[in-house]
Order: sequence, then structure tokens, then C-alpha cells
Amino acid sequence: MVPIKPYKKELDYSYTLGAFPTIELLKARPEQALGVYLHSSATDSGGVRELCRALGVPVLEGDRAMSRASPKENVYVMGVFSKYGDELRADAPHLVLVNPGDMGNLGTILRTAAGFGYQDVALIEPCADRFAPRAVRASMGALFRVRTRTWPSFEDYRAAFPEHALYPFMLTGAKVLRPGDPIPPPRYAILFGNEATGLDDSFAALGESVFIPQTDAVDSLNLTIAAGIGMYLFRENLTLNERASAAQGQSEPQ
Amino acid sequence: MVPIKPYKKELDYSYTLGAFPTIELLKARPEQALGVYLHSSATDSGGVRELCRALGVPVLEGDRAMSRASPKENVYVMGVFSKYGDELRADAPHLVLVNPGDMGNLGTILRTAAGFGYQDVALIEPCADRFAPRAVRASMGALFRVRTRTWPSFEDYRAAFPEHALYPFMLTGAKVLRPGDPIPPPRYAILFGNEATGLDDSFAALGESVFIPQTDAVDSLNLTIAAGIGMYLFRENLTLNERASAAQGQSEPQ
Repeated sequence: MVPIKPYKKELDYSYTLGAFPTIELLKARPEQALGVYLHSSATDSGGVRELCRALGVPVLEGDRAMSRASPKENVYVMGVFSKYGDELRADAPHLVLVNPGDMGNLGTILRTAAGFGYQDVALIEPCADRFAPRAVRASMGALFRVRTRTWPSFEDYRAAFPEHALYPFMLTGAKVLRPGDPIPPPRYAILFGNEATGLDDSFAALGESVFIPQTDAVDSLNLTIAAGIGMYLFRENLTLNERASAAQGQSEPQ
Repeated sequence: MVPIKPYKKELDYSYTLGAFPTIELLKARPEQALGVYLHSSATDSGGVRELCRALGVPVLEGDRAMSRASPKENVYVMGVFSKYGDELRADAPHLVLVNPGDMGNLGTILRTAAGFGYQDVALIEPCADRFAPRAVRASMGALFRVRTRTWPSFEDYRAAFPEHALYPFMLTGAKVLRPGDPIPPPRYAILFGNEATGLDDSFAALGESVFIPQTDAVDSLNLTIAAGIGMYLFRENLTLNERASAAQGQSEPQ
């Protein structure tokens, strides 16, 4: 087993703190799971022990190891997993987060992405560490349900996926986002910037920039809220459009 | 000046920690502001001193007072304000939060409410303390931009506003929420439950329960995300409908 110490970004492994994200790790990415620690006083581990046995993942007892990984809080179930990199699919919609700064926000957005079926998420550096225990916990383990990959710059991401229609979300967006629009093509990416600074002006020229209408009582919506609304609308509009096309073009039932 | 001590729910005053929420307090609720503390080493207070002078709000120096109110973190600008209760408007849409448990979530939702023009927010007890410094900060001061009031039970709220059409958001909601619907009547309330438990089944009978479609990769969306999507859609659909009616019914420009 790898040595259990306080988490650092430089480690090539990380931890899932708590039963819920640990179970998500075991179910969605068993090949990444190095082991699971159970606290000696853990009475209910939510079936973790059985799951580990079925998957051949070692179960360890080590109260001290767990308190080293999570010094501020008692944890009763902890997974240890190897970090990994995913390939994003070229034929799927992408969520692109440019320089997200907060681990909690990143986790929440990954959870929302899983909830709306965005299974391909690009992260542009510098960005919050998606593998940090805090991000994993904020995602409630949904990190393991989506493909994620980092790129050193947006240009690098774009070079890898030149075909996606880009929709940058910007306070200066040219198009006000109304519920029924836009209807994106099948290959599209929605882009969100950093919490404090948003996307810089250069993104407006790269695609159809959109703006979520809001009052001037706030200077902007929270990143997690804007991303949630964007993901919901683009996904629903695409789906509604595909349904309408299917209804028009096909006489056979699906 | 009131004695500055660690915040407790029982106090009839609270604190805004940081320049941003303090400025929002001064701009939106100057009558509630008892005073503003500036740290002796604060160089840039974002115009707080001038604002206080114009409003007749006392400015105090008291590094120790501020560290008593915010023991874990250095704060350079801190407002002190009297708690208050608002009356909600009977002719406006309402946001109703039933037993929200987390102060950070509550603050984020209040901020989103201000951003989407929901200026009348009902809170059903037990609920997180909207006046706690953490909630105020999460709202980035938007708390002061919306009317908020607590009720001991949902029945008490309903007795005060019997006319609002109710839309409870539930995982078991009867209607799947698509972008263009529903188009609510002018007087409506959207309802969200507690983070962990949602709204109990009895709410389905009170109105048109709605469900935000989501994959089974997550057990539910975050409360803040669901509320954000709900507020955006209901507000936009109502506005679009009003615009359409206005365009049909009127030949004169507005």
C-alpha cells in the first residue's frame, strides 16, 4: 500500500473521505482503487466491505493512517485511489472549465455534469485540483462518473477538438440565453471561466457567446449556478430538437 | 455600540465580514447598519469610510473587536447590523425554501434570487440562520437586496398567501421540467426542500410538482443548482409569456 500522508497535489494518488464517495469510486472506477480503510469503530460501512471483497480491493484497518490523511475531521471510511487521465470523446458534447479556482465549486460542477449527462469535461490550467479530497467530496464521487482531462491552455484543448461549436458564457455575451435557445449542433462545447474573472474578451470571437439574463442586484451569478443552468438548457434543447427531428423524419417507432 | 462577541443566533444583531457585504449592507439597508469597524492596518476599504460618512453610520477602529467576531480569520472591514423582518409582497412571485439546512447554500440561493429578481423569499423553520455571518458572506450581501421572512411551518406561510400557485420541486415531481414550461401565472411560488430530504410527499398534492430531468449517475442535483435552474426558468417563461401577450394585445409600443 502507498504511504498515507496529508494530501498534496504532487502525489500520484488521493483519497475518498466518507462512505459515499468511496462507494462511487468502487462502483465507477474499481481499477483505480488501491485500497479502502475502515475505522476500527466503524459499525456501518454501507456495504463497503462486501463491495471490496467482490472487487478484490484490499480492506485495511488503520485509524492513524486515516487521521493522517484527514487531520481535521474523523473519517470512518476512506478509499485510496491512483490518479488517472481520461480521453474525451470527439463525438460528445463537452463542458470546458477555463481556470476554475475553487475545489468545492469544481466538485459541485462535476456532480452537476454527471447529473445532466455531460460525461466529457475539459479543464484548462491553471485549475483547481479535481483529485483533491475536497473536490472529490464536493462531487460526491461524481468525479469518477465523468471523463476529465486537463490541458495546459485553451489552444491545446482546441487543437485536440477543432470541430466543436463553442458557446462561451460571458457577462458580455452577444446572445441573451432564453429557455428555448440556442439549439446546439450535436458536437458542441459550453465554456465557463474563472469564478472571479470569467472568460476574457478573446473568447467572444471563438463562438457564439451567451449571457444568462440577470438583474443588476448582483455583479454576476455564482459559477456553479451559471454552469448548472447552461448545462441543463443546452442538453434539454438539443434533446428536444433531436426528438422533434426524429418525429418528423421517421415513421417507425424507435 | 452593541458589544462585539462571537456570533450566536440568539443575538439581535450580526456582522458583515469583508468590504463587499458591508458595502451591500450600507447601500441596501443603511437603516439597519449600527456601525462599521475598520482594521487599523486597512489601507483600502473600498470607499466604506466615505459611504459611512454620507449615511451617518459610525466608523470605529477596533482590531480586537473584529477578531472576537471573526476568530478564525483576519477581517479588515466589518459591518454590524440589527436583524430585521420583512413583509413579503402578495402580488409578486415567491421563492419558498422549506427547511434549508446549510448557511452557505442559503446564502448562495439568496444571491441567485437577487440575480433573477425574486425579491420575496419565504423560509420555513427549522432553517439555516440567514443572518449568520457565513450566510451573509455566501450571499455576498445579496441578503440585503431581497425581502426575507421566516414562518414556523409551511401552513403558516400558506395561510398568509393562499392565492399563490404552488410549484414544489420534487424528485417524484409529476411534471418533467422542460425549458419552455411551465408558464406560471403572475402569482406563483416555487418550493424547494431540505438538502438531504427534499420536500415530503404531501407537497405533491398542494400544486403542480415538477422534476428537473437528470441522469441516474447522481442521486439528486445540489439544492443550489436546482433552485437556480427553477428560478431562471420560471422567471424567463413568465417574462416571455408576458412579452408575447403584450405583443398580441397591444398595438402601441410600450
